Amino acid sequence: MDFVKQLQSPTLAFLIGGMVIAALGSELVIPEAICTIIVFMLLTKIGLTGGIAIRNSNLADMVLPAAFAVVTGIVVVFIARYTLAKLPKVKTVDAIATGGLFGAVSGSTMAAALTLLEEEKIPYEAWAGALYPFMDIPALVTAIVVANIYINKKKRKEVAYSIGQESFSEQLVAAGDYPDQKDYPSSRQEYLSQQKGDGDNRVKIWPIIEESLRGPALSAMLLGLALGLFTRPESVYKSFYDPAFRGLLSILMLVMGMEAWSRVGELRKVAQWYVVYSVIAPFVHGLIAFGLGMIAHYTMNFSMGGVVVLAVIASSSSDISGPPTLRAGIPSANPSAYIGASTAVGTPVAIGLCIPFFLGLAQALGG
Amino acid sequence: MDFVKQLQSPTLAFLIGGMVIAALGSELVIPEAICTIIVFMLLTKIGLTGGIAIRNSNLADMVLPAAFAVVTGIVVVFIARYTLAKLPKVKTVDAIATGGLFGAVSGSTMAAALTLLEEEKIPYEAWAGALYPFMDIPALVTAIVVANIYINKKKRKEVAYSIGQESFSEQLVAAGDYPDQKDYPSSRQEYLSQQKGDGDNRVKIWPIIEESLRGPALSAMLLGLALGLFTRPESVYKSFYDPAFRGLLSILMLVMGMEAWSRVGELRKVAQWYVVYSVIAPFVHGLIAFGLGMIAHYTMNFSMGGVVVLAVIASSSSDISGPPTLRAGIPSANPSAYIGASTAVGTPVAIGLCIPFFLGLAQALGG
Amino acid sequence: MDFVKQLQSPTLAFLIGGMVIAALGSELVIPEAICTIIVFMLLTKIGLTGGIAIRNSNLADMVLPAAFAVVTGIVVVFIARYTLAKLPKVKTVDAIATGGLFGAVSGSTMAAALTLLEEEKIPYEAWAGALYPFMDIPALVTAIVVANIYINKKKRKEVAYSIGQESFSEQLVAAGDYPDQKDYPSSRQEYLSQQKGDGDNRVKIWPIIEESLRGPALSAMLLGLALGLFTRPESVYKSFYDPAFRGLLSILMLVMGMEAWSRVGELRKVAQWYVVYSVIAPFVHGLIAFGLGMIAHYTMNFSMGGVVVLAVIASSSSDISGPPTLRAGIPSANPSAYIGASTAVGTPVAIGLCIPFFLGLAQALGG
Repeated sequence: MDFVKQLQSPTLAFLIGGMVIAALGSELVIPEAICTIIVFMLLTKIGLTGGIAIRNSNLADMVLPAAFAVVTGIVVVFIARYTLAKLPKVKTVDAIATGGLFGAVSGSTMAAALTLLEEEKIPYEAWAGALYPFMDIPALVTAIVVANIYINKKKRKEVAYSIGQESFSEQLVAAGDYPDQKDYPSSRQEYLSQQKGDGDNRVKIWPIIEESLRGPALSAMLLGLALGLFTRPESVYKSFYDPAFRGLLSILMLVMGMEAWSRVGELRKVAQWYVVYSVIAPFVHGLIAFGLGMIAHYTMNFSMGGVVVLAVIASSSSDISGPPTLRAGIPSANPSAYIGASTAVGTPVAIGLCIPFFLGLAQALGG
Repeated sequence: MDFVKQLQSPTLAFLIGGMVIAALGSELVIPEAICTIIVFMLLTKIGLTGGIAIRNSNLADMVLPAAFAVVTGIVVVFIARYTLAKLPKVKTVDAIATGGLFGAVSGSTMAAALTLLEEEKIPYEAWAGALYPFMDIPALVTAIVVANIYINKKKRKEVAYSIGQESFSEQLVAAGDYPDQKDYPSSRQEYLSQQKGDGDNRVKIWPIIEESLRGPALSAMLLGLALGLFTRPESVYKSFYDPAFRGLLSILMLVMGMEAWSRVGELRKVAQWYVVYSVIAPFVHGLIAFGLGMIAHYTMNFSMGGVVVLAVIASSSSDISGPPTLRAGIPSANPSAYIGASTAVGTPVAIGLCIPFFLGLAQALGG
Repeated sequence: MDFVKQLQSPTLAFLIGGMVIAALGSELVIPEAICTIIVFMLLTKIGLTGGIAIRNSNLADMVLPAAFAVVTGIVVVFIARYTLAKLPKVKTVDAIATGGLFGAVSGSTMAAALTLLEEEKIPYEAWAGALYPFMDIPALVTAIVVANIYINKKKRKEVAYSIGQESFSEQLVAAGDYPDQKDYPSSRQEYLSQQKGDGDNRVKIWPIIEESLRGPALSAMLLGLALGLFTRPESVYKSFYDPAFRGLLSILMLVMGMEAWSRVGELRKVAQWYVVYSVIAPFVHGLIAFGLGMIAHYTMNFSMGGVVVLAVIASSSSDISGPPTLRAGIPSANPSAYIGASTAVGTPVAIGLCIPFFLGLAQALGG
């Protein structure tokens, strides 16, 4: 019953609608320029929301839980990188994107937890809800950076391999058999000249992080975050970015549904791994956050209700902020993998199993 | 007085504004990507409105009037196809598009009728207003399908003719005079190979219907209809698709005004036929619906007020849902023909003459 | 304190944000189709606002002050054309665009003046605020026309020069050395044939004015103005163009910030002239309007409060309507010049110095 209701929510409805019309062979096309501006507006809005929430929160009180939220968001991505991605035939970028989505936070899952805490009369800090951007944004940034590092390493390997392969042809070039060098791949040229300077074969991490932060997705999100933190964008946020959010998201979900449909076949041999991951991961992520929350509970008097909130936002996976960010930040990742894992399994597990579990755990420990 | 007011409504004002700036040689251009997304949003909204209205209505009560609305919507298109389109020099696609617009429903004409019924204290079913999508959407779908069937048949004839013409050149090809066959039209190649399989020369209707339904216009409208019927898109409908509708429509009307201006010359020799059609058609369409409504009156106790509503929505022609749908669905049709017929003649006739006529008829028969 | 608040306003915040992310090398791109439609919507909205304000105002009462507002708006542009543009190394188009921005009106500067007048209990006509479109729109139109005349004259000179240069090559052509004339610049051909008809070398002004009015920027603004004046677009204005304005402006300001950053280097040798102009111009413009206002005061009994309003809107420079108009109307002008001059110096001078100055002047003269 509740599951049907969930499927009828506009976000999911448009996603499924996109899959259905793609399956029926619709010729509907949303122009790329429109997708670009929608992604820009969605990510700017996500950044603005986070920035305004952080600016309005009392950082002194929440410094330790906030730091733990950041740590959890980052750790969740690395867990996916070194578990899900290592499973047979699972594509690494898909696994990293899935980790990013599970690190990001679902507002509605958090809202369900807050409602339940109030019903059970378990007290929690008023700012507990403001913890979510501290986990959400670092998780998505980490996923994009880690994916870009992986993609770069892979490219280098391929180039190195192709250099080995081409050694023979290079001798031919030297011998004058290929007088025309116009088609010489410039990227390899760059690589070779770079090699001279470097003197070694390691991928430099920092330039890739810089590159990721400069990409359109993280630029927009961090711009929104900075504007939310340091300026007063409330008027334009309330009149424009916030009201347009759900509507623009519905269009993008339709596009992602069509894209997901065209790539759903890739999941044939790996779907079971995504199911296994999506059932276990919410508990693992929640337990990490719960453990860190208990440290804050004993050292800073962080309430048990707050610990539950931290655990629940860790076990939740984003249906809202995540997909547009990952689509723009890791375009090669398969949306049917990461959205499928999060929406079809991760979110029901988080809402139906993790919330009662962490609530019970808190009552057992704290009561 | 009322006519001036009508012209000042935003929808018409932007249409006329577009014609004026086109006449003055403005270089204003609305990018095609923007027109595409506007059409998508308008048609999705039209579908959503219809779908939500149908979901919220009690289908059991209204099954017969709703079926009659569907029938009327379809019949209206075929009337235009076999009357207006047969008049000398009238282009068939323009006539079919005009039929689609006259089959579609004007919300404001319907609202005028409902107001008058209330003033005259003639009772009608509360769900009578919900009959409009049952006429509106089938009429537009039928128009697009019928136009595509016509265009396909015409192309086949031209190909067949050109084959006859080219038989001589084909002999030359066979004789080796045209060694380079790269430019051979692939569509004809397809046609020839298709011919082999078919063994006859008839146009297959079903693939064209499928093709029409898969096109961007009907995809978006039927997607909206399905989402409105089977999911709960109210939140995104109320916050996004509905409030943006009039504004986006104003931009598209401006574009259509500019397009209509550039093609108004085509109407020089046929304008009189459009005037004749636009004066007679509202009465004919209304009488068909009135007759069908009387059947429902005698068999299902459908109120006389409801019969009037059905007749009025049949005599009305759409200024809102129709133009964007037809622009996307039958791009070759001349907007100055169909919008001119509907706006300049059809709508004033429907509001000023048909509403009082059908009201009087109902009072004469039912009182 | 107030300066920091000003910088935190969404419009400026997004402008600075755009400069910062451009400086950091962000790869964020807003598609050109999106910029086009944003500019269209902003300029249509500016025109609609002006048109509706003029339609709702009692023109008979305000005819002289309104005429003086128009005169001031036009004069301001010519002042910039013959002072700022003549300073060493200042680019003429940049100077004209800056003049246009200083002729256009800042709504918030005007609001500050109206508030102060009320606090000081100085009476002014209720329609005084409606004077602003009479100065705003003529200033922007004049700037675009004057810039286009300048650009045309410059092109003619270059062509004339290149004809001199090419006389030798033309002899070669005549001698048969250049058999292929395909690449012959068509614009010069046009020029030559035009020369024959003209018989002289003067630039014709009227075709350039027509051309400017037909351009996308002024087309949209004048369309909005006409629709606001002659039709009833209030419903679509209130539901669409007005609420979307600030949000769309924020996106365009971001784009203009990125563009301004890439051209800020051009200002290195001329920045001091822009500072000098931006400090002096608000006083000069205000005094002209104040003088004209005094004429209306003595002849038509225009209140002293109204004279102050007229002077303040003349000394203000537009942060809202100006930038999008000039970006579309004079694309070659450097936004870091005109926005920098207006925002960084002109507006603070107008608010902080000109408002008290003209208020004191009115009290000294009128009290």
